[in-house]
Amino acid sequence: MPYKTRISTIQAGLRRKRIDAVLISQPQNRRYLSGYRLDDHGIAETSGILLILKKGSPYLLTDFRFREQAEQQAKGFEILLYPKGIIPLLQKLLVELGIKSLAFESAYTLHSTAEKLNQLGKKLSIDMVPVTGLVENLRRIKSDSEIELLKRSVRLNEEVFQSVYSSIKGDETEIDIALKIAATMRQKGAEGESFETIVATAAASSLPHAVPTSRKLEKNRPLLIDMGLVLNGYCSDMTRTLCLGKADKKYKEIHRIVRKAQLAGIQGVRAGVTAKAVDSAARKVIVDSGYGKQFGHALGHGVGMAVHEEPRISPKSRKKLQAGMVITIEPGIYIPGWGGVRLENMVVVKEDGCEDLNKDTTWLDI
Amino acid sequence: MPYKTRISTIQAGLRRKRIDAVLISQPQNRRYLSGYRLDDHGIAETSGILLILKKGSPYLLTDFRFREQAEQQAKGFEILLYPKGIIPLLQKLLVELGIKSLAFESAYTLHSTAEKLNQLGKKLSIDMVPVTGLVENLRRIKSDSEIELLKRSVRLNEEVFQSVYSSIKGDETEIDIALKIAATMRQKGAEGESFETIVATAAASSLPHAVPTSRKLEKNRPLLIDMGLVLNGYCSDMTRTLCLGKADKKYKEIHRIVRKAQLAGIQGVRAGVTAKAVDSAARKVIVDSGYGKQFGHALGHGVGMAVHEEPRISPKSRKKLQAGMVITIEPGIYIPGWGGVRLENMVVVKEDGCEDLNKDTTWLDI
Repeated sequence: MPYKTRISTIQAGLRRKRIDAVLISQPQNRRYLSGYRLDDHGIAETSGILLILKKGSPYLLTDFRFREQAEQQAKGFEILLYPKGIIPLLQKLLVELGIKSLAFESAYTLHSTAEKLNQLGKKLSIDMVPVTGLVENLRRIKSDSEIELLKRSVRLNEEVFQSVYSSIKGDETEIDIALKIAATMRQKGAEGESFETIVATAAASSLPHAVPTSRKLEKNRPLLIDMGLVLNGYCSDMTRTLCLGKADKKYKEIHRIVRKAQLAGIQGVRAGVTAKAVDSAARKVIVDSGYGKQFGHALGHGVGMAVHEEPRISPKSRKKLQAGMVITIEPGIYIPGWGGVRLENMVVVKEDGCEDLNKDTTWLDI
Repeated sequence: MPYKTRISTIQAGLRRKRIDAVLISQPQNRRYLSGYRLDDHGIAETSGILLILKKGSPYLLTDFRFREQAEQQAKGFEILLYPKGIIPLLQKLLVELGIKSLAFESAYTLHSTAEKLNQLGKKLSIDMVPVTGLVENLRRIKSDSEIELLKRSVRLNEEVFQSVYSSIKGDETEIDIALKIAATMRQKGAEGESFETIVATAAASSLPHAVPTSRKLEKNRPLLIDMGLVLNGYCSDMTRTLCLGKADKKYKEIHRIVRKAQLAGIQGVRAGVTAKAVDSAARKVIVDSGYGKQFGHALGHGVGMAVHEEPRISPKSRKKLQAGMVITIEPGIYIPGWGGVRLENMVVVKEDGCEDLNKDTTWLDI
């Protein structure tokens, strides 16, 4: 179990920063450190908060509804319930534990909650310290066992894609396909989708974030499928664009440019290069082909316990890639009224290049 | 279209508070005011932010990926894109518009975002004003047309329940049933689930927030199904607990106490009473039966565009119910190792009582 080591790392960080304890509320950070799997029902309804002290055993604060799951999943954590809300429990606990400074996650704590924490801090003479990236910085670099879990997630996602793809008759709606994908994921053992599956036919494929509708799949037009699942807490994310029927000249032209851009992006990945250099390697292919304005989003993003995480592979990011990062490479060309093509694979950054986690080659090189 | 009236109400509120403009980022608030339907991909990835001035036309700030949907859905809004992020766009826009005070939603703005807004405010001499409930207070009381939409949502949810319930053979897993419910919702026209469907068999039903697993449904044991859908932006939420096979004496005893508590709660609802009085009316039945400690959650919650919204029907809430509120009444008894029974209906608060929106009577009075 990796949780003990991860908590020790956080505790060492707290001691270095001279902070007595930290509250961890972001769901993936919480799971990364404790094994507690429940997600939140939105930002305003937490399933629990970790309290990690600079020394000693950690706590999981949660409510009645989640007690059984907390006890089963967060081994090594003391489970405390807050029948009257989190603030009253903290008021008692922080004093008992002699805590004089408490960090909280600035990028996952609501302004209204931070105000309550600050009031409590004033009352109890406790320094409240907003922090960012405390756990995310650990999560950016994946261990070998995490990469193995990501590979399994990618593999299962491809298996689901193949199963659904090979079953397409052509008279389905976008929603039919999206539902079949979601159901197949669960039946094959996934915890669920890592994001709402996108199935977009014809002109709808020009919406980078299309929502599936009851439109029937159109023949001889682009069909864009962007899908990912969660397996053992780790996400996959893959996009394929294809044509049911016969791809015309324009479709082939666009598709081949996007694939060429994707390969250029993948070839540009290795430890030490900046994220913007990778973005630029792929983007140049599209710009040189005259479609630069039709590729309005970033080239990719990190994937791990969250489907979108650091690092962003954008034209703005000067951050350097490091070995063990896992990122998507997903260029696209979107032409309103006609449609769009996006191709997305996941790769692991290595010292001297990268490993493409996707083995599925359906509709890649046409 | 109700959007114009709603925006005028917000604008009048701004003028009363002497605030020049407000940013609306909470997804249901955004949709309530604009018709823009996209949800966020989590708190850290917004699909757009409304900027409403105390006078004049409103703006929707969003990014490239959502432009087509924004233009189609948010009629009457000027769509502005932020290729370099929200803060740079605001920096330019707030100056151009001569804004001297800007409200933001304290209960849906991250601490880290609020810090950036405050820095911008200092730089531009703009007062940044955290507000809560600005839109939620309007949303609490439903108009007749909203109640009609909620009725349709409840009706479709019951139709889905009946369709799946009548198809149960008994050899399915919890996941099978949950997937069938989700798929039937979409096939019958729902936008999706209003929360992840709970299907919990036997001992798992004692987890108020159980996650469906690959356990097979057990005969002669409780089967708890908690499900809701979104239709035209409005949520439903219903729980039924039943026995496949033969209910034994203990099951019948527990079930009848919960139903009696539910009826007592429903009978206690009318405009002017406090939320805690309604909670107490139902809770008393369970406490008097000796199961008080096995009912650890609040009796209910408001439902509207969000599946959980104000008012909370909890033992702590002194807030008074008002006509036009729509709330759930959902008592439960949870016995670890044995299982649980919860029954949940949605009611509209009226001056002299309430209207039960649920017509389905499956496994209510046994």
